[in-house]
Amino acid sequence: MKYGDGCWVDIEQSDKNKVVVVPLGSMEQHGHHSPLLTDTYLVTAVAERVERELREETYFLPTLWLGASDHHLDLPGTTSVPNHVYTLVIKNIVRSISRAGFQRIFFLNGHGGNVIPGTQAITELANESDEYNDRWMALASYWSVASPVMAAENHGMQTQQLTHACEYETSMMLWLHGEIMRMDRVTSSPPLLDSPFFHSEQGGRINVAKRMSTWTPTGAMGGPQHATAEKGESLLNAITGEVVSFLKDFSTW
Amino acid sequence: MKYGDGCWVDIEQSDKNKVVVVPLGSMEQHGHHSPLLTDTYLVTAVAERVERELREETYFLPTLWLGASDHHLDLPGTTSVPNHVYTLVIKNIVRSISRAGFQRIFFLNGHGGNVIPGTQAITELANESDEYNDRWMALASYWSVASPVMAAENHGMQTQQLTHACEYETSMMLWLHGEIMRMDRVTSSPPLLDSPFFHSEQGGRINVAKRMSTWTPTGAMGGPQHATAEKGESLLNAITGEVVSFLKDFSTW
Amino acid sequence: MKYGDGCWVDIEQSDKNKVVVVPLGSMEQHGHHSPLLTDTYLVTAVAERVERELREETYFLPTLWLGASDHHLDLPGTTSVPNHVYTLVIKNIVRSISRAGFQRIFFLNGHGGNVIPGTQAITELANESDEYNDRWMALASYWSVASPVMAAENHGMQTQQLTHACEYETSMMLWLHGEIMRMDRVTSSPPLLDSPFFHSEQGGRINVAKRMSTWTPTGAMGGPQHATAEKGESLLNAITGEVVSFLKDFSTW
Amino acid sequence: MKYGDGCWVDIEQSDKNKVVVVPLGSMEQHGHHSPLLTDTYLVTAVAERVERELREETYFLPTLWLGASDHHLDLPGTTSVPNHVYTLVIKNIVRSISRAGFQRIFFLNGHGGNVIPGTQAITELANESDEYNDRWMALASYWSVASPVMAAENHGMQTQQLTHACEYETSMMLWLHGEIMRMDRVTSSPPLLDSPFFHSEQGGRINVAKRMSTWTPTGAMGGPQHATAEKGESLLNAITGEVVSFLKDFSTW
Amino acid sequence: MKYGDGCWVDIEQSDKNKVVVVPLGSMEQHGHHSPLLTDTYLVTAVAERVERELREETYFLPTLWLGASDHHLDLPGTTSVPNHVYTLVIKNIVRSISRAGFQRIFFLNGHGGNVIPGTQAITELANESDEYNDRWMALASYWSVASPVMAAENHGMQTQQLTHACEYETSMMLWLHGEIMRMDRVTSSPPLLDSPFFHSEQGGRINVAKRMSTWTPTGAMGGPQHATAEKGESLLNAITGEVVSFLKDFSTW
Amino acid sequence: MKYGDGCWVDIEQSDKNKVVVVPLGSMEQHGHHSPLLTDTYLVTAVAERVERELREETYFLPTLWLGASDHHLDLPGTTSVPNHVYTLVIKNIVRSISRAGFQRIFFLNGHGGNVIPGTQAITELANESDEYNDRWMALASYWSVASPVMAAENHGMQTQQLTHACEYETSMMLWLHGEIMRMDRVTSSPPLLDSPFFHSEQGGRINVAKRMSTWTPTGAMGGPQHATAEKGESLLNAITGEVVSFLKDFSTW
Repeated sequence: MKYGDGCWVDIEQSDKNKVVVVPLGSMEQHGHHSPLLTDTYLVTAVAERVERELREETYFLPTLWLGASDHHLDLPGTTSVPNHVYTLVIKNIVRSISRAGFQRIFFLNGHGGNVIPGTQAITELANESDEYNDRWMALASYWSVASPVMAAENHGMQTQQLTHACEYETSMMLWLHGEIMRMDRVTSSPPLLDSPFFHSEQGGRINVAKRMSTWTPTGAMGGPQHATAEKGESLLNAITGEVVSFLKDFSTW
Repeated sequence: MKYGDGCWVDIEQSDKNKVVVVPLGSMEQHGHHSPLLTDTYLVTAVAERVERELREETYFLPTLWLGASDHHLDLPGTTSVPNHVYTLVIKNIVRSISRAGFQRIFFLNGHGGNVIPGTQAITELANESDEYNDRWMALASYWSVASPVMAAENHGMQTQQLTHACEYETSMMLWLHGEIMRMDRVTSSPPLLDSPFFHSEQGGRINVAKRMSTWTPTGAMGGPQHATAEKGESLLNAITGEVVSFLKDFSTW
Repeated sequence: MKYGDGCWVDIEQSDKNKVVVVPLGSMEQHGHHSPLLTDTYLVTAVAERVERELREETYFLPTLWLGASDHHLDLPGTTSVPNHVYTLVIKNIVRSISRAGFQRIFFLNGHGGNVIPGTQAITELANESDEYNDRWMALASYWSVASPVMAAENHGMQTQQLTHACEYETSMMLWLHGEIMRMDRVTSSPPLLDSPFFHSEQGGRINVAKRMSTWTPTGAMGGPQHATAEKGESLLNAITGEVVSFLKDFSTW
Repeated sequence: MKYGDGCWVDIEQSDKNKVVVVPLGSMEQHGHHSPLLTDTYLVTAVAERVERELREETYFLPTLWLGASDHHLDLPGTTSVPNHVYTLVIKNIVRSISRAGFQRIFFLNGHGGNVIPGTQAITELANESDEYNDRWMALASYWSVASPVMAAENHGMQTQQLTHACEYETSMMLWLHGEIMRMDRVTSSPPLLDSPFFHSEQGGRINVAKRMSTWTPTGAMGGPQHATAEKGESLLNAITGEVVSFLKDFSTW
Repeated sequence: MKYGDGCWVDIEQSDKNKVVVVPLGSMEQHGHHSPLLTDTYLVTAVAERVERELREETYFLPTLWLGASDHHLDLPGTTSVPNHVYTLVIKNIVRSISRAGFQRIFFLNGHGGNVIPGTQAITELANESDEYNDRWMALASYWSVASPVMAAENHGMQTQQLTHACEYETSMMLWLHGEIMRMDRVTSSPPLLDSPFFHSEQGGRINVAKRMSTWTPTGAMGGPQHATAEKGESLLNAITGEVVSFLKDFSTW
Repeated sequence: MKYGDGCWVDIEQSDKNKVVVVPLGSMEQHGHHSPLLTDTYLVTAVAERVERELREETYFLPTLWLGASDHHLDLPGTTSVPNHVYTLVIKNIVRSISRAGFQRIFFLNGHGGNVIPGTQAITELANESDEYNDRWMALASYWSVASPVMAAENHGMQTQQLTHACEYETSMMLWLHGEIMRMDRVTSSPPLLDSPFFHSEQGGRINVAKRMSTWTPTGAMGGPQHATAEKGESLLNAITGEVVSFLKDFSTW
């Protein structure tokens, strides 16, 4: 159910054990070929599909399109708040929902840069007030929730994983919003660093802080030129299924 | 044009004298009959109509649905950040757009509680950095931009002005999203205070700080029971025209 | 009564329904002819006259001469705190007075730049703590309280309204502190912008953020050369009367 | 010279080697017999006397009556900001004066609680920006500047030193503002702690944090019942002389 | 080399391409049997061993024993700062080292709770200032760096992974500081939650925020009763080797 | 007793009247001859000696080597947090210890720059929460606690007092860690300012804010060339005795 389409008396009378889901997007550069709102479009598409399957058991807020993308600011169009402001934003969203009485809040994330400041937010809330001792606050990116079903071979992918403006994101965008994609100018940058400990596209065992413009001058990674709408549909279906499974599980914690 | 549907190279090559418009909404209680996202729906409707008329001269960001509504938090469903966090959010949106090189930024506001912290934001930026000396940063609620064309008699209104969950907002919502309105349970609270200096619905010469629950236990003000879709259509047309006029004027400052 | 001239045991035993008034000034450039403390002198003069008429019903704190004038900092002598610091200052003054048990607090403001951060302060307090649900916290500039009696024609003014270092402020300063006025070097700058939506001296329907030095290189606005002490006396009397009326009204809310 | 009585063009043309003095007061409980503004009255009296002797060599701002007195908040009437807000206030006053070009800034303090947060302020500024490398920023309480001439025996005092609402402060208040002193209800509390390392009235080698209400339920310390106007005059003369000497010395650093 | 044992002239003349390593510990409850400083002792032991092998190529700061352990505060002895303060601490350590000119900084972490706020810190620095574009800032827990060599079967472990006050940590403590271990009262709590998406000991695909006291009333997890000094020695050797390998690799990035 | 070597159940059962001591150090330049960790080594040495004499009556935390040394940052190697961050750190250490139930907390300080922000911390805590009304929170540098026994003549010193990287500190370092001292390159800078009101090495009646690099280009003060290990031993014994006396006294407040 859409949280924002109810009136306050509806919220007051609702079952407080329903999971409240907050989709988190961003507005940031996604290479020469994919729009600024790519992450917002993708997580919203996942959210809408999940909401249709779990209408009675969940509440969905609208996607927050403003994310923590300061590492993309060197390329124009990126519209972002710094991590510590994002942390404050997420804390206050949780406080608002918790004050309404809900017990289970899940942030369905669609932008990698939101993970650290978003987790900082729910961690601080849990520590600051006894109010959250009987709440479940969780946050995960859709590709993390769905990791077991995202293997490249399942979807005919030529690259190994979702990164940024890559084969995976581009495929889903082609399926969802092909009319605004500019595949005529698709490009991407090769990995800057490949070490057994950290890879500039696939991460690794070490957390490294670098601006995106130092990793990728084009703003894109992975192999977006291999993207197709069909791969995107396949991926989106798999992700939706796995997020639905998670929310059913989460509602029993 | 939709800012978020472009790629970063489109933004880089765009005319930096175009006005960038950021619609500001909120998610907060709007009485027993109107949804939490009322302000977001209304300002988005204005924004979409204006964008259609000024597609070549403007950029529109998506509406920020998260606003400064802490004065509504006593009624559940309200999802909000405190004023000082909202100030930080608005400052960083401006910084992002300014960093992309744009000279004219307008916040088209749809929620009264955003005006003080939003103006605090642009004021602080202007004072903090010389970068903004040649920028135009402005913020106004649509009812303020359009005030000369919102007179009650122009639209058949029985109440004198737009307040909260009132005849004006309800009429526009009926025209736009009648299917989610609950006119079967419409109600509102009478004004708490009527003084020559300050009126609890119409404001006045004095700034007064009170939570909404102390002004209106039902969460609604004005005469929402008098609302009709026709009045809403009339109002929306008038507002759109006046905002268009303003943006044309603003682009010449 | 002067709040600061009592001892703590006097405050403890006082009637907590008395209005506590805090006059807010500033120290900032006021053109070539009027001193830095102009706003502080003016609001203090209003406060003293009002206090004499309402000695038994009110408490007056000393004027806070430090205001939010960062938009004037380009011209030297301006001594100011940024908006967010001013917000913190006002919040803590309210907390102190509220902790002493008083129910009604009014900030009598004499500097335009204090309005946004001052209102941000009382709004945040109302939202943060239930303690303020039964308090009345209000803030207004004296020219706003007194707007109905400030019409140009009532006082022989050649300009339409009070702005900054203008005919109005200068007239009152000539009446009060003529000995430090430098009318021999009076000057002012013409309006930078005149639009149906916003005028650089008279404001309008839009909130615009600009430093004063971009509006007025001389630091003065309006027609200070038309100022006379007689106009100032007339204005001051009118303002005093209206503020007295307001405080009597406020004490009944 | 009074800084605030000049216009910005006067400040612009002034000799930037003149010392700018900012007197710091407070508004806080001072026992049953001395007014809330005691510290503000006293430091202002010192400032005015010094200004008269050094008119050509110095600029004096008006006394900031709002201080860091949260340790007195348990007794009503105390109006204060917490230490960290006071630090921000002092930092911004220095920035304003430094931006006008002045090289020497002295905070003449009249309230013990301001010393820590005020010193925190100037220390942080010195560390944060190279701008302050060629500035002299200093802060001291008048009793510290004047310590060599404040010995009890010089002024006929029966107690050993200035503390709070004590023989020293009360004597000076009697000389300056006897009409608002309530010697009919003078009282004070005995020292709570007397150790070779720390004495609750005279301090010592250890910094201890306690609220004043835990040290003195009456709000007064020392022997205020021994105060006389004559002692106060003697003290004030001595202090004035020593502050004059310091400012002459400071202007040569 | 020990950074803190040099003088400033040594630092000034040193090779700025050497990796500067900052070991991060904590002081928090570790069950009934392991001391508050467990994480500090462990990461210090790793650091000392690594430093001995890489003396010429690295600088090691002393371990920061104060960590972000607020989620442990319900059990006494835990001494901690909240996440946002820890973020500020880490940012300023990096700024200090970067200001000395070093290009490569690695935080060798020994406490899980430090990862989020520590990564928030280096991310914000990278985004805030161009100064860090040519720096390498990285952070990782030793068990993450060493993950390939920590498999249970390599060290005779009966439990699958390092958690908190567990078989792994306890074994290393027995090897290093057996004399302060209280194996006579060893105990631990069973996992609270076991889901395909998240396990209360082993984490999973979802970030969940809960205080430790809600996961484990005893404060310990895993199987500490199976710990032996031999397993600890084996583990410590493996970890040391892998961290050495990483630092050699890192120095070539 | 070492606080950090206990388990949480030990802390829970301990006598909460024992004094908890937190030694505060720093890592900052100490001239050409003494290591960055000089203050940390010295205060740790005092702490260890005191702990041995008062093992049953006290708890000692490990020394916090990270201090407020931003005034030394111009010379490399200095690793520091700004004052306001240090204040937050100290506040949270106190909160942690107070939450465990302890009544008496003493910060044994070894770095002058920590005094202002550390005192700001305990002052704010006392003012913010009633929890601290029955706590004793104190902070002092070891040379302040021990001032009566530090007279130059008692230890054969040629200079009058402890300053920075001086005869006193160098002597103690020679006694404790002679192997890392570089007396072959000892040097120091002469006092920059000598006034009856303030001396750049010995302070005085005025608080002055300057970076160390403006006082001393070499980073050292006083007469370090006169230092000997024997003087250091004598000093350390005297200091230890006096701190022991203080803690015995403090435990009776």
